[in-house]
Amino acid sequence: MTVVVERRDRVAWVILDRPAVRNAVDLRMRVELADALDRLAGDDDLHALVLTGRGETFCAGGDLAELAQPRTPAEAADRMAAGNRMIAALHGFPVPTVAAVHGAAAGAGCGLALACDLVYAAASARFVLSFTGLGLAPDAGASVLLPARLGPGRTKELLLLGGTLDAVDAAGAGLVDRVVPDDRLLAEVETVARTLADRSRPALVATKRLVDRHVDLASALAAELDAQVALLATSEHRAARDAFLARKGART
Amino acid sequence: MTVVVERRDRVAWVILDRPAVRNAVDLRMRVELADALDRLAGDDDLHALVLTGRGETFCAGGDLAELAQPRTPAEAADRMAAGNRMIAALHGFPVPTVAAVHGAAAGAGCGLALACDLVYAAASARFVLSFTGLGLAPDAGASVLLPARLGPGRTKELLLLGGTLDAVDAAGAGLVDRVVPDDRLLAEVETVARTLADRSRPALVATKRLVDRHVDLASALAAELDAQVALLATSEHRAARDAFLARKGART
Amino acid sequence: MTVVVERRDRVAWVILDRPAVRNAVDLRMRVELADALDRLAGDDDLHALVLTGRGETFCAGGDLAELAQPRTPAEAADRMAAGNRMIAALHGFPVPTVAAVHGAAAGAGCGLALACDLVYAAASARFVLSFTGLGLAPDAGASVLLPARLGPGRTKELLLLGGTLDAVDAAGAGLVDRVVPDDRLLAEVETVARTLADRSRPALVATKRLVDRHVDLASALAAELDAQVALLATSEHRAARDAFLARKGART
Repeated sequence: MTVVVERRDRVAWVILDRPAVRNAVDLRMRVELADALDRLAGDDDLHALVLTGRGETFCAGGDLAELAQPRTPAEAADRMAAGNRMIAALHGFPVPTVAAVHGAAAGAGCGLALACDLVYAAASARFVLSFTGLGLAPDAGASVLLPARLGPGRTKELLLLGGTLDAVDAAGAGLVDRVVPDDRLLAEVETVARTLADRSRPALVATKRLVDRHVDLASALAAELDAQVALLATSEHRAARDAFLARKGART
Repeated sequence: MTVVVERRDRVAWVILDRPAVRNAVDLRMRVELADALDRLAGDDDLHALVLTGRGETFCAGGDLAELAQPRTPAEAADRMAAGNRMIAALHGFPVPTVAAVHGAAAGAGCGLALACDLVYAAASARFVLSFTGLGLAPDAGASVLLPARLGPGRTKELLLLGGTLDAVDAAGAGLVDRVVPDDRLLAEVETVARTLADRSRPALVATKRLVDRHVDLASALAAELDAQVALLATSEHRAARDAFLARKGART
Repeated sequence: MTVVVERRDRVAWVILDRPAVRNAVDLRMRVELADALDRLAGDDDLHALVLTGRGETFCAGGDLAELAQPRTPAEAADRMAAGNRMIAALHGFPVPTVAAVHGAAAGAGCGLALACDLVYAAASARFVLSFTGLGLAPDAGASVLLPARLGPGRTKELLLLGGTLDAVDAAGAGLVDRVVPDDRLLAEVETVARTLADRSRPALVATKRLVDRHVDLASALAAELDAQVALLATSEHRAARDAFLARKGART
């Protein structure tokens, strides 16, 4: 399994578990995470969900091995659709979700953090948005979840130029709700989760749904899929990808 | 009357006037405030409206006596509908509105402040959002007016965990436009109101309407009503309410 | 010509060129800027566009001579429609746009800056929003582009009361993305433009389009036109305009 679920009282801890590749998201993880979320969504005793990553990194984003692999537009669309299902399941999760981010949250890893209701970051966290550098557009919901938190100006600066925000800058920009020392991150998130565990579950469900009425994630995910599939076929993307993989070497 | 209207030149001062219960909102106040706003909306010489509270508190939120009173879902829906009419009348008021907040703005009191165009706060102001602590969801428009000002992250943190923002934190989060010393609040608001009184009324009306085109308050209020009526019937709410009333004693 | 276009590699520099009237926008500039943008939009080798003003001012807003000139509602609507075409062409420009603002960006000049993806400001920049002072409502897209960056509270304060933000306050409010010393502004913008020139053009186009899906500029421009044409016919506007022109003297 690429994803581990631990249940502590009324809180589910969902841990991305591919530390050898910095929890990079491959097709299998997309499916397994979406499946795990679907199962947990049916659990009426759950009050909160925490998402975090095993090891030193929250999530390094799309798997490089997958990026290197040639594929048809239909295969690319299937992969994107699996990613969209994962993000939609996380964003639409019935009870509150908290991302506990340490180390890098890159690309789709950033999308996973943004799809959570609350984003708590260790001082070591950094949010990497280099889609355009790879000849790609934002995906994993970033095209709608990022402007919702940062506004259009800062979002465009980050997405068009590509860039990395450290934890403090991310908090200043509104991407992160709290920054805590690395060795306090899980304790802090556990405190929040316990507070949520004490709240009325129907009230949490209704509150989350009322606030999320204003975000049309589904149509954004569909538009991202169309854009990304077209970009994956461009010579610009292929050249950027080859240069990137050459720099990274046989890392995966 | 639970609401007093004072007309000074082209400015209407609307004062919540139940200081003995910290201007708590009961059914009568909902109706009387909505009626007063409807009457004032027809006054073509009015350039601005100020909303404030008599005594040491802006508005303590829903009346505890009302909360304690058993009621059928139909009665609860009627009460919510009266509250929604009050908030819609305030948010849709044709000329600019300024909330002058001192002391607590809790629950529906927070909604009343947020439904104004400008929110000026005394240093003593505090915004209390403890819906989930009572097993309830945000109402009085908070589910759409709060994210409009705070963004989704901070909004969810406040609404899901429940919490209180003091004046300075509220300004930092964007809930408040200006913080002034308590003894300067009314003078400051009067200055703003006089500036508005000197402006072209048709320009004020058009400007407000153009900016508010982007907020769909009506559908949010309808969704809040449905959610709240369902939550009022849950055992979680009843237990939280009984514990709350026991703590407060026979305060009202 | 009121607008000069310089092409440097993959970047188009579009320069408002009426320095004698502080680059005030008259009907001719509206048409010439829209036409220039339409031509450049068809250039598939372009990666970025910079918008700036010749001389000491970015853009002083609507031309005073035009304001003084009597016109029928139909003429006013035609003029507004030309302005809307200019703003729509800029906001919908296929590749990223950067406003390089120095000195005043007033009224429609503010709208031109806001219609760009990134707003870089010299320390001398100031954003002047005094529509209501002239008995008018926001136009040039300000009614939707300003709240997108500033949120509803700060937007209403600025638009209803009228006011000026200097560069630092504008950055604090989110209207500006970067503030740099005046003598560094063009160098800084050139660096950004070069970064964009190195990115995949299809990725830039797709990224911009995905983020802008959430802004309905077209319907806001239509509502602004209706509002402004009605306000131009009010006695309040005429009185404010006459007082304003008397203060300014025969400046244009």
